[in-house]
Amino acid sequence: VRIGIVGLGLIGGSLALALRRSSEFAKSRTAIIGIDFNRASLVAAKKAGAIDEAAHPDSAPYAACDLVLLCTPTPELLKALPAIAAAMHPGALLTDVCGVKELPCALGAAQRNVVFAGAHPMAGTEQRGFSAARANLFDGACVALCPPTGISQGNTAWESAAKATVRALWATAGATRFLELDPDEHDRAVAYASHLPALTAVTLFEALEGAGATAPNARALAAGGFRDTTRLAADGTVGQAAVHNRFIPEAARALGESLIALAGQIEAGTLSNDLTPLAQRLEKLADRRRAMPLPPVKA
Amino acid sequence: VRIGIVGLGLIGGSLALALRRSSEFAKSRTAIIGIDFNRASLVAAKKAGAIDEAAHPDSAPYAACDLVLLCTPTPELLKALPAIAAAMHPGALLTDVCGVKELPCALGAAQRNVVFAGAHPMAGTEQRGFSAARANLFDGACVALCPPTGISQGNTAWESAAKATVRALWATAGATRFLELDPDEHDRAVAYASHLPALTAVTLFEALEGAGATAPNARALAAGGFRDTTRLAADGTVGQAAVHNRFIPEAARALGESLIALAGQIEAGTLSNDLTPLAQRLEKLADRRRAMPLPPVKA
Repeated sequence: VRIGIVGLGLIGGSLALALRRSSEFAKSRTAIIGIDFNRASLVAAKKAGAIDEAAHPDSAPYAACDLVLLCTPTPELLKALPAIAAAMHPGALLTDVCGVKELPCALGAAQRNVVFAGAHPMAGTEQRGFSAARANLFDGACVALCPPTGISQGNTAWESAAKATVRALWATAGATRFLELDPDEHDRAVAYASHLPALTAVTLFEALEGAGATAPNARALAAGGFRDTTRLAADGTVGQAAVHNRFIPEAARALGESLIALAGQIEAGTLSNDLTPLAQRLEKLADRRRAMPLPPVKA
Repeated sequence: VRIGIVGLGLIGGSLALALRRSSEFAKSRTAIIGIDFNRASLVAAKKAGAIDEAAHPDSAPYAACDLVLLCTPTPELLKALPAIAAAMHPGALLTDVCGVKELPCALGAAQRNVVFAGAHPMAGTEQRGFSAARANLFDGACVALCPPTGISQGNTAWESAAKATVRALWATAGATRFLELDPDEHDRAVAYASHLPALTAVTLFEALEGAGATAPNARALAAGGFRDTTRLAADGTVGQAAVHNRFIPEAARALGESLIALAGQIEAGTLSNDLTPLAQRLEKLADRRRAMPLPPVKA
């Protein structure tokens, strides 16, 4: 079995390292072909034992791969998907890690060569490149899985096989939770889970930068709260996915209106000298947020 | 020397533990009096060796303290400040850790018994109570220091002494950076560094909760990005300070407008099939955010 991983950055690189950790994967004698424009990433991945072969995207042996994983940022991924699908051998399996699912799944459905089974592992850091890749990145993660499409459409057996293969791959890489979602529902849900947080991080960082004479003092006072709240702004890739999410404009507009409404409530509470209702809202929300199960910070 | 710490939660408790670590502090033979309504916190702090004596706020020996630190959340702190100032012995030093500085410093200026030197250590976690207190919480932190007021007003020698005492206390506790700021400039700067992030965290969490049928899937997909971006919402205390910040309504309104403007830019880019300018903006911002010096995550 040969697997091609296109893009050996944080996600593709971590996936290769995570698979390599597995004794089950070793027993399967699967070869990993690393495919990247960046020669240094290929060399580093080879040296780390993450990949067996290295290839340039323009001359990669896509036709020799049973499975290809697209792990590049959203714009590159959407651009490369049709050509890679066309270069693969008929009936092979193509999958991705894109943070939006409507666009890649629509492209996958439109091609007539391979099975496309879109996925989205919910894990990442603000670091980039193979140097940031870690074998434990996906440990305990949730992976969203979209219905297989492409040439499998209507063929239940092929769809089941594609689903099982993608799921098994991520389970081998450490993921423990799987959520089967149609592309539109994935994009709706991830707008709240990931894309609104990313765009909010961007506007918070821009607000500090735009604070004029106050900006230097704001920078000096910025600590763990600012660090965490704006972390996703340091990872341009989530923001890149966010702007390709059809549901984001409406959600971002609603969030903006919420902030404006909150500003009005603070003013009203200050004027009436009664901030108690706001305090109670914050207190109850803090309780609910603490009770929400979320993955722990990894060392 | 006797120090009173009012409120043995995360901040007051960590301060007591941090001071206790210091051999210099031990040599000074300073007694720490823990003052809290919560009997369990007092017992735990005594057991941990963080405090020498425990007292209830209504019967604490304020008059016997050379220095009192107010470490309760904002509403309680503002309510208690005048009475505690009045109960201290004339000329003693009162300071605080409140996340806003205009309101406590105005209260401090209005009383005629003690010197009030407002401070704000830029450190915290989303945990609460003495059980969450850690001796290393303030290591490497920045502390904002406001001009001493109260009976020191106009007395340069008293002001210098008060400043030096508060600064030395936080340096002993591990802080390494100090920023002298007038209360209004502190509140302006902290709006961007901390209070906008806290209120944004609140609205992001409420947006997910309000996502209707999509909310369960959004919860299932929420991972490290959502965890970090909404972390401050789990700490009601930053939000409590934020709603007492005079500069927050305008800043929150502007941030809301930014999000709405960004929604429009995403729609326009999608319609014109040209998201490149947005992608470049995100990419450049990610570079600037990564280049910003921020405290590391502590173990």
